[in-house]
Amino acid sequence: MTQKYPSALLENAVNEYSKLPGIGRKTALRLALHSLKRTVEDVQNFGRAVVELREQVHYCRVCHNICDEEVCEICSDPRRDESLVCVVENIREVMAIENTGQYRGLYHILGGIISPMDGIGPGDLQIADLVERAKSGKVKEIILALSTTMEGDTTNFYIYRKLQDIDVKLSILARGVAIGDEIEYADEITLGRSILNRTKFSDTLKL
Amino acid sequence: MTQKYPSALLENAVNEYSKLPGIGRKTALRLALHSLKRTVEDVQNFGRAVVELREQVHYCRVCHNICDEEVCEICSDPRRDESLVCVVENIREVMAIENTGQYRGLYHILGGIISPMDGIGPGDLQIADLVERAKSGKVKEIILALSTTMEGDTTNFYIYRKLQDIDVKLSILARGVAIGDEIEYADEITLGRSILNRTKFSDTLKL
Repeated sequence: MTQKYPSALLENAVNEYSKLPGIGRKTALRLALHSLKRTVEDVQNFGRAVVELREQVHYCRVCHNICDEEVCEICSDPRRDESLVCVVENIREVMAIENTGQYRGLYHILGGIISPMDGIGPGDLQIADLVERAKSGKVKEIILALSTTMEGDTTNFYIYRKLQDIDVKLSILARGVAIGDEIEYADEITLGRSILNRTKFSDTLKL
Repeated sequence: MTQKYPSALLENAVNEYSKLPGIGRKTALRLALHSLKRTVEDVQNFGRAVVELREQVHYCRVCHNICDEEVCEICSDPRRDESLVCVVENIREVMAIENTGQYRGLYHILGGIISPMDGIGPGDLQIADLVERAKSGKVKEIILALSTTMEGDTTNFYIYRKLQDIDVKLSILARGVAIGDEIEYADEITLGRSILNRTKFSDTLKL
């Protein structure tokens, strides 16, 4: 059943809100009506911020992260270790890794992972550019930090094949039991991997 | 912990998205990053629709519903029964009642309900205007269709007191067991009300 709206302006706003991911028509209506309780200026600020992000967005020409300059803050920071490059799917993973405070190298944002079901092939990702970075001679180690899914594994393997003739160390995030997890409830595959890749106990004391 | 964003534009957009009701910072980031996958034109259309709604919104001078003209489509429809006025909290209830297809009268949108906890008193609502409509002589019956909460009850009683010296019938939505509900699981108060306000069976056969 199509909903009838008392105003074309309202209907238009609801249509636009409901194009956002995870926002259905009921929530879209709630968002549109909420905006009527805000000041005109507040709503204008919202609209401007959203549009300006899309219009003026820049991507770092080194790592393809979103940034405001030609080269992002991380890539242009002289204190970061440029011999270390962490390959991630998207900017959200960069933010997650930065939050750990454990990583001082650079990043390389692929912009997705290989996913034939979604029509995403290697050519849609920044893989050729990663190969160029690997060949530059500056990079000693590349760390793969993609999702532990079939698509992530496919992409990891594709990158491995592309880099195998280049003199660069290729590593991958450790898989294992998450900190705070009870062994009893860990899934078998993770538990199996954590036994195979067991770490020397005295090494963990340094962390 | 404050999240560090790689771009001021992104941070600004995330801040603005997270001001929307029910949108936390994680969802705001997801919405902001999603906009980067859309065309500039699509995002501009979104921004324009949202801002135009706020800038150009009109309220019907009769019923206070949102509309594009001076008087809304419902109030200006000659086929509707102007002797019947249904009092609702907001435009969402108008849409819900319109969707039933069971109502041919007009509406009166209060713009909220009396809620001292939220600082909303009778003066913040369109109650004085409802009294004026009741006095006009055109209205024979006013139907209260507010939430069945303490705030709704308070508002109903306030309106009842304001209208008690005016020659207009005041009615309220029937309370009872919802259609499709099992009696076993109906709450006691609703079940009690539905026994007290029982309907003549032959009347239900006409529906």
